[in-house]
Amino acid sequence: MPKTKVAIVGVGTVGAGVARILLDHGDRTAKNAGATLWLQKAVVRDLTRQRDCQLPDGVLTDDLNEIIQDPEIQVVAQLMGGVDQARTTMLSLLEAGKDIVTANKALIAEHGPELFSRAHELGRSIAFDAAVAGGIPIITNLTQCLTANQVTSLVGILNGTSNFIVSKMEEDGHDYNDAVREAQVRGYAEADPTMDVDGSDAAQKLAILAHIAFGAAIDWKKIPRVGIDSLDPIDLQFAKELGYRVKLLAVARMTENGLELHVSPTLVKIGRPLAEVRGAYNAISVTGDQVGELLYHGLGAGQKPTASSVVADMIDTAVGRTALTFRTLKLFTSHNPDVAICPASEIVGRYYFRFLVDDRPGVLSEIAAILGTHNISIASVIQHEPDEEGENAVVSLIIMTHTATDGDADAALEEIMRLGSVRAGNRKLRVQD
Amino acid sequence: MPKTKVAIVGVGTVGAGVARILLDHGDRTAKNAGATLWLQKAVVRDLTRQRDCQLPDGVLTDDLNEIIQDPEIQVVAQLMGGVDQARTTMLSLLEAGKDIVTANKALIAEHGPELFSRAHELGRSIAFDAAVAGGIPIITNLTQCLTANQVTSLVGILNGTSNFIVSKMEEDGHDYNDAVREAQVRGYAEADPTMDVDGSDAAQKLAILAHIAFGAAIDWKKIPRVGIDSLDPIDLQFAKELGYRVKLLAVARMTENGLELHVSPTLVKIGRPLAEVRGAYNAISVTGDQVGELLYHGLGAGQKPTASSVVADMIDTAVGRTALTFRTLKLFTSHNPDVAICPASEIVGRYYFRFLVDDRPGVLSEIAAILGTHNISIASVIQHEPDEEGENAVVSLIIMTHTATDGDADAALEEIMRLGSVRAGNRKLRVQD
Repeated sequence: MPKTKVAIVGVGTVGAGVARILLDHGDRTAKNAGATLWLQKAVVRDLTRQRDCQLPDGVLTDDLNEIIQDPEIQVVAQLMGGVDQARTTMLSLLEAGKDIVTANKALIAEHGPELFSRAHELGRSIAFDAAVAGGIPIITNLTQCLTANQVTSLVGILNGTSNFIVSKMEEDGHDYNDAVREAQVRGYAEADPTMDVDGSDAAQKLAILAHIAFGAAIDWKKIPRVGIDSLDPIDLQFAKELGYRVKLLAVARMTENGLELHVSPTLVKIGRPLAEVRGAYNAISVTGDQVGELLYHGLGAGQKPTASSVVADMIDTAVGRTALTFRTLKLFTSHNPDVAICPASEIVGRYYFRFLVDDRPGVLSEIAAILGTHNISIASVIQHEPDEEGENAVVSLIIMTHTATDGDADAALEEIMRLGSVRAGNRKLRVQD
Repeated sequence: MPKTKVAIVGVGTVGAGVARILLDHGDRTAKNAGATLWLQKAVVRDLTRQRDCQLPDGVLTDDLNEIIQDPEIQVVAQLMGGVDQARTTMLSLLEAGKDIVTANKALIAEHGPELFSRAHELGRSIAFDAAVAGGIPIITNLTQCLTANQVTSLVGILNGTSNFIVSKMEEDGHDYNDAVREAQVRGYAEADPTMDVDGSDAAQKLAILAHIAFGAAIDWKKIPRVGIDSLDPIDLQFAKELGYRVKLLAVARMTENGLELHVSPTLVKIGRPLAEVRGAYNAISVTGDQVGELLYHGLGAGQKPTASSVVADMIDTAVGRTALTFRTLKLFTSHNPDVAICPASEIVGRYYFRFLVDDRPGVLSEIAAILGTHNISIASVIQHEPDEEGENAVVSLIIMTHTATDGDADAALEEIMRLGSVRAGNRKLRVQD
């Protein structure tokens, strides 16, 4: 059986998973690539650290040059985190003639255009299916399987950490901080989970997917995003009462007003597939004008699922498919100038509002009147009896609206908050039927 | 923009859908294939028949030789039905140097080895993602995206006609014949739906998927199969009462006794993704040792979803990816000699039994005793009060078992049916938790 020599840069959780597949299951790469993927080198920063895999003698090194100067190494899985050093490393590897496979979504979201241009100039390729949704091969599905379609919408649960935390809050009644701690103990959240829980991680993934599906040039930092860090367990309870679950949805949808893009905690109707995505799972619903709605559901992170995508990309690269796709699609190096981004204030949708209001007559009518002046009609209302009676009694008032623009919703909200009968603290969430 | 000349053989529902994408959306094939897929010829049997697409002058013909003798036509979508003539047509097209895309699952299931061998000899390729599960690109996912995995199980709802009929029976209480008529009126069932409802269609698809996922050489006719044509609405009601829905599942699973293969109406726990697949949708759950469980859900038939898969395969073929995959994997021309098929009697699972029994003391204990002698323990029982009192009163007795072999289940069933207190007519269904 012929060999294709490969290397790994970064032997953390995912890198160790990749090494294990290559070392323990050479028969798979041989069968599916027509050549055994032979792990020649694995580069790490600190040679002394304990690792989650046994490497043969001579493979581990802390010198990137051992890859760069070995012309026999054709494919490199670059699995280091971070952005700046990852960028210079990738550029060096491309210059040295290596084809790259990466799981680093931040790097692609930040420097995709530069890295992909350079790869084109050098006749090399970059594969990155592991960068979005871990084990779900969504990039290959968009770039190969759905090419007969104009994608019209893409709705995803792209951050498993957030989904785990919200599932815990909903199922066990945990408050946000307890659920975060549980996610950290179970290994689903980093010590500093900021990028996961504030929606940044999902926004980076959404920017990558939206570029592929719609050809739009997107700066992920400009995607309107709300994280789950602002969620209150009582909103999950009210949502349930209304027949919904709250999910952190990343949405890219072609509308009359341009491409709608946002990441937001959203009420999803119970029974819809996305509402049933639990724990650390990811899911992506893609609608195309030919195929209709296709749903993908699987593990969005973790050693083995992510390694599954990395090694599949290494096999694709070794076989030669990646180069063909890379050259044909010109991802990140050209975009469709006709795709305009929908301004945030013009995004149309339904909303869930929660207000804390004085328990006295007329409050609902005042609020409804303000909503009406902003063209927002009410779909349903929940108001329970107050916990305490008396002059200072307050109650939660939940209003689900029919469709409205985000601008109208925000203007109405601002006006409502100036009412004397409405206390500080409110919640506005999106609703998806 | 360069052109790649293509042709269609068979302009029925799917062929018309393919023609429409090629003619109306040349920008898509150009962008994704790097060359416009130019529809040069469309071959039909009867030139006078009305068709669901407008073809440019000179494209329609009833002479296959107009493709065979045109060396500029590189890719042919062969979309005719049937097996024998489809086989000779495909062989002629391969001999003429054409790369083939097909949606004909019966042809692949029956003659895959011969056709694929000939294509290899001639340096040509055959792509067939549309042959299984319509718009769900399961073949590409198995052959490219999941190549780092040993697939351990594959469970699918692969026949949309059956799923539509069972959904109707369950949701609207229709009996089987009414539900079939409704499926025919809505275009989800053929005038003669035998192959769909008796499990043959799902068995053909399962044979193809199991060959790809496990490398097993499988004659679809030898796959044990039970269709939905034997289902009684009362079994759907009892299933619901137990917290299950009935789905026609196609299963390929690696077990200690070999590769378990069968198509059977199966109780699936409500809330599990496969239980929630409604109407004409298909779904496939693939478990791999690295990726864990991946679920695909989408439209399994129909003009546009199937055309989506056909055109994606035509693009893959034009770009050159199909040839690489075809040469590397050697599908249908070699198989894994280590994979043994699990004998039907050794398949292990849980069962739902329904008996019609005399309403008198001791019957349940007699039946339970027989089950016990065959190593089958009871998980739950339903017996309602009889509709009529008296000596001749009969009741339905439902027994859900713990795991047992199919052989033990059948042996117990035979013995139970010999009891004086058990009337003719029983039901045995599989159960999936």
